[in-house]
Amino acid sequence: MENKTIINMPSAVREKNPLVHCITNYVTVNDVANMLLACGASPVMADAAEEAADITAISSSTLINIGTLNKRTVESMKAAGIKANEMHHPVVLDPVGAGASEYRTNTVFELMKKIHFDVIRGNMSEIRTIADGTGTTKGVDASASDAVTEDTVIQNADFIRKLALTLETVIAVSGKIDIISDGKTVYLCRNGHEMMTKITGSGCMLGAVTAAYCGAEKDTILDSAAAAVSVTGLCGECAYKKTIASESGISSFRTNFIDAMSLITSELFLKGCRLEKI
Amino acid sequence: MENKTIINMPSAVREKNPLVHCITNYVTVNDVANMLLACGASPVMADAAEEAADITAISSSTLINIGTLNKRTVESMKAAGIKANEMHHPVVLDPVGAGASEYRTNTVFELMKKIHFDVIRGNMSEIRTIADGTGTTKGVDASASDAVTEDTVIQNADFIRKLALTLETVIAVSGKIDIISDGKTVYLCRNGHEMMTKITGSGCMLGAVTAAYCGAEKDTILDSAAAAVSVTGLCGECAYKKTIASESGISSFRTNFIDAMSLITSELFLKGCRLEKI
Amino acid sequence: MENKTIINMPSAVREKNPLVHCITNYVTVNDVANMLLACGASPVMADAAEEAADITAISSSTLINIGTLNKRTVESMKAAGIKANEMHHPVVLDPVGAGASEYRTNTVFELMKKIHFDVIRGNMSEIRTIADGTGTTKGVDASASDAVTEDTVIQNADFIRKLALTLETVIAVSGKIDIISDGKTVYLCRNGHEMMTKITGSGCMLGAVTAAYCGAEKDTILDSAAAAVSVTGLCGECAYKKTIASESGISSFRTNFIDAMSLITSELFLKGCRLEKI
Repeated sequence: MENKTIINMPSAVREKNPLVHCITNYVTVNDVANMLLACGASPVMADAAEEAADITAISSSTLINIGTLNKRTVESMKAAGIKANEMHHPVVLDPVGAGASEYRTNTVFELMKKIHFDVIRGNMSEIRTIADGTGTTKGVDASASDAVTEDTVIQNADFIRKLALTLETVIAVSGKIDIISDGKTVYLCRNGHEMMTKITGSGCMLGAVTAAYCGAEKDTILDSAAAAVSVTGLCGECAYKKTIASESGISSFRTNFIDAMSLITSELFLKGCRLEKI
Repeated sequence: MENKTIINMPSAVREKNPLVHCITNYVTVNDVANMLLACGASPVMADAAEEAADITAISSSTLINIGTLNKRTVESMKAAGIKANEMHHPVVLDPVGAGASEYRTNTVFELMKKIHFDVIRGNMSEIRTIADGTGTTKGVDASASDAVTEDTVIQNADFIRKLALTLETVIAVSGKIDIISDGKTVYLCRNGHEMMTKITGSGCMLGAVTAAYCGAEKDTILDSAAAAVSVTGLCGECAYKKTIASESGISSFRTNFIDAMSLITSELFLKGCRLEKI
Repeated sequence: MENKTIINMPSAVREKNPLVHCITNYVTVNDVANMLLACGASPVMADAAEEAADITAISSSTLINIGTLNKRTVESMKAAGIKANEMHHPVVLDPVGAGASEYRTNTVFELMKKIHFDVIRGNMSEIRTIADGTGTTKGVDASASDAVTEDTVIQNADFIRKLALTLETVIAVSGKIDIISDGKTVYLCRNGHEMMTKITGSGCMLGAVTAAYCGAEKDTILDSAAAAVSVTGLCGECAYKKTIASESGISSFRTNFIDAMSLITSELFLKGCRLEKI
């Protein structure tokens, strides 16, 4: 990967220290906050409708993650997203579990009607649900039939590119091979490790890092999102190695994963980045 | 322990990968999610009344933990529990802090009136509160006067057996010696370590593992619950050893505890299981 | 530090095992609960208005942290605080992000009107907001212009002393140099490490330890608060050393931080305490 904006991102975000407003689920919120700090951003979580817009106004970017949505917080998501659009702050949507219940699916469509999302990040089942309602979400995980493999990557990449074009957004799909597209360019990313699926919150943390990177570099949303996907995947690889070397389990992996983000540099990223433009 | 269903449980749950719907407290929810992943299940947390029943419908079992209950989530607990009963999915109740406030105690009775729980898992103070209101809960911990020791285990076991018979449920009481009964058979479990009481969430995680095991093996609820108690206790023992060996403290213990669950096998369980049928 | 009450605090809190009722944010609540256990207290989190006062009634002290406040929990904060005042239990306020939104600032003033806080613990931006609305909070972190350095410490200490006198409370300001005053005496504390600002929740955990220490020693609130600040800072120093020695990152620091609290003794505290009375 020769793209300097991308490779420089781990340094840029530390230098600019963007404040990321997160309205996110209570399951992984602590990991999300620590991951944001680890990558060089600052987190602020504020989900009361009384202050959501005010907090957005002082932030660099906004993350909306519907993992544990409810009537009260959905109103705050709308207020935050609308304010972010007004201020031209990047807004990232993580449609956790879209397809698993009507309430989730409908809420995602409602949010998308009211808010322009700069990036939508999810697994293939969630993204398929957004596209045409055919996602086969199993709870909050992608179902096997939606997996992106070397055999299916080209057709999936084309599907994502077209969807990004239609929705006028950047779409970042997480999977064995990640696909990131703005409707024109497509990046494939082969960073990451399967152990990331064995802890809760890998996707949520990636969503947050994406918001941080977009908050640091607002004029290159596609590259910012691609860098977030690749860096986070690389941290997963580093964490896997450390976990296996110490004969530890998934909770150590979680610690090692966030640790790796706090230790990553643009130099290390240059060596480990496995992004490809197609 | 010769019971093959019990010893095989760590393998069975990994193979069947049950989806466990948790309506649980926000204090330990991340540990609960990671513990479910560690034991081979998948977690889904959804506490909005708008979707609680829908999420239950796609799950294998349901956990209701009242640790940070409120009016909104109690309604969701009811919706999820009633749906689970309709679908004959196992439902586990963790009556955290029952006895500590009237609101908790009343909510537990209200839930028990509307929902048939397949397993009720708590400490002795919580279970005594359910039985006759005499539990002396200190916040969310069992009080000293309710401790189960070698001296009191037989009379306690008899009390639990009778209560299980009356309530037509499996009761799993956590303590120095754990007692699990369906009203006929009684298991005692001597796995576990006192350090489990020095972190938050040991009980919550056990409740979740119980829901996972019951979701994987629905026809043997007593054995599934007993296996969950024993395996989780064994993981506590492993974690204690690792924590002491590295001269670490309680937060490392927490990590080691979840790690141990992700590394446990039926072979290891066979060696370490300290369940006894009386 | 010759003050025996202060040096003895790590032992005293373990002996008395105060139950601390926390109405706190969902971002760091798990760390808060584990930090309370680590220091020798017991946590209970209950934020429903239906039970907030009841839970306060069985507790030794109360922590109110507005990190993720909302209309529902603000009512519970009031109920808990008023009950705590009635029972003469110490109440600690952690005005997280005061100044970052009108809602937060107004809520803090409303709480302060209805509840007498024994300790208010925050960063300088939050405390300045409470004093005169001039704090320049960046999200939930103190802004650079509010930093306490060796050059500004004397004037800052005087400001805090006067504010404590006016508000009739103990104020504990966290920063490079911590300032703790009851309006007469001022303690400066030089314990702590900058890495504490690289994880989420250091402040929240300190607020909780302060509530635990005040719950254990109610008649010496200033000394209890000063000890909490110093012990927690010392744990940060220990955690930093361990993290660097193992070439780890911020998530390991978090683990090491809570570990250190669970391993601290009055003997270790005597050696490491860097409190100074001015």
